[in-house]
Amino acid sequence: MTTTSSLNQVDLEAVGALAGKVQQDPAAGQTRWAANVHWTGAFRSESQVRSFPPAASDEPAGLGGSDTAPNPVEQLLSALGNCLAVGYAANATAAGIEIKDLDIAVDGDVDLRSFLGLAPGHAGFSAIRVRVDLDTDAAPEAVAQLHRKVAASSPVGHTLQAAVPVEITPGS
Amino acid sequence: MTTTSSLNQVDLEAVGALAGKVQQDPAAGQTRWAANVHWTGAFRSESQVRSFPPAASDEPAGLGGSDTAPNPVEQLLSALGNCLAVGYAANATAAGIEIKDLDIAVDGDVDLRSFLGLAPGHAGFSAIRVRVDLDTDAAPEAVAQLHRKVAASSPVGHTLQAAVPVEITPGS
Repeated sequence: MTTTSSLNQVDLEAVGALAGKVQQDPAAGQTRWAANVHWTGAFRSESQVRSFPPAASDEPAGLGGSDTAPNPVEQLLSALGNCLAVGYAANATAAGIEIKDLDIAVDGDVDLRSFLGLAPGHAGFSAIRVRVDLDTDAAPEAVAQLHRKVAASSPVGHTLQAAVPVEITPGS
Repeated sequence: MTTTSSLNQVDLEAVGALAGKVQQDPAAGQTRWAANVHWTGAFRSESQVRSFPPAASDEPAGLGGSDTAPNPVEQLLSALGNCLAVGYAANATAAGIEIKDLDIAVDGDVDLRSFLGLAPGHAGFSAIRVRVDLDTDAAPEAVAQLHRKVAASSPVGHTLQAAVPVEITPGS
């Protein structure tokens, strides 16, 4: 087993330094994240995160959009897949497991009746499924442990599986 | 009041046609959405939705990433803001309300201890806050009704506020 920082190209030292800092001072683990969305007409908008270029959002033509970009529920599935990818990279590297290839397919179901105002109730995903295709030579029991660790520590996965309070406030 | 399709550039006819179709055949409202994530080394990955160009994901340097793109929890906040923007555009247009400008600021808190393996439990957002800055000349009671309608019908907002089952399956 090796935990050198070149395994999977992961900078384990940076992760270890952060973990050490948070262990000494739990307040350092309290992080705040933000995104700013600007409506650009019809069902199009752009989201800006830190100083990265704005990312476009739109809806398919069948939903009344102009179909120029992934829509918000697809973006949410992407966020989940990307979050799990970080989890696999971090936990595999810490366990000395080399990832040769990793693909994560995410899909989920939405009943549009609530969004369209045809039925009250839950307008979101009723279920989300993830298939993880991990190519590695690691032992099956190490891989099984890796799958468990990632599922147990995914910030986006846990956000979706919990009822998170969302407070929406009109600006002044 | 007007509900012409040029208001807010929204194609109300397409939305109305879909609503009519789903009302006649509820099965038409059952939709499935997907994203495919490919790990590209370290904490970087790319998500592909339909035939759109892949979108990059990374982590900040402080979290061991190479800081080339928004991270997954920021992507999730973007998805929420973009979803609310669609909700405002759709419901404002249906109500004959002109949107002159719309900005949506989303932020939320994550305790990194669970992600870092320093504490068991919820690794996701503990709370998410949204500030909606809507510039419109509509009457205050119509605007208040609009805020209520959007909050009551947001697919991403409802997904976050509910405990959604997420099934993670290793590929063969």
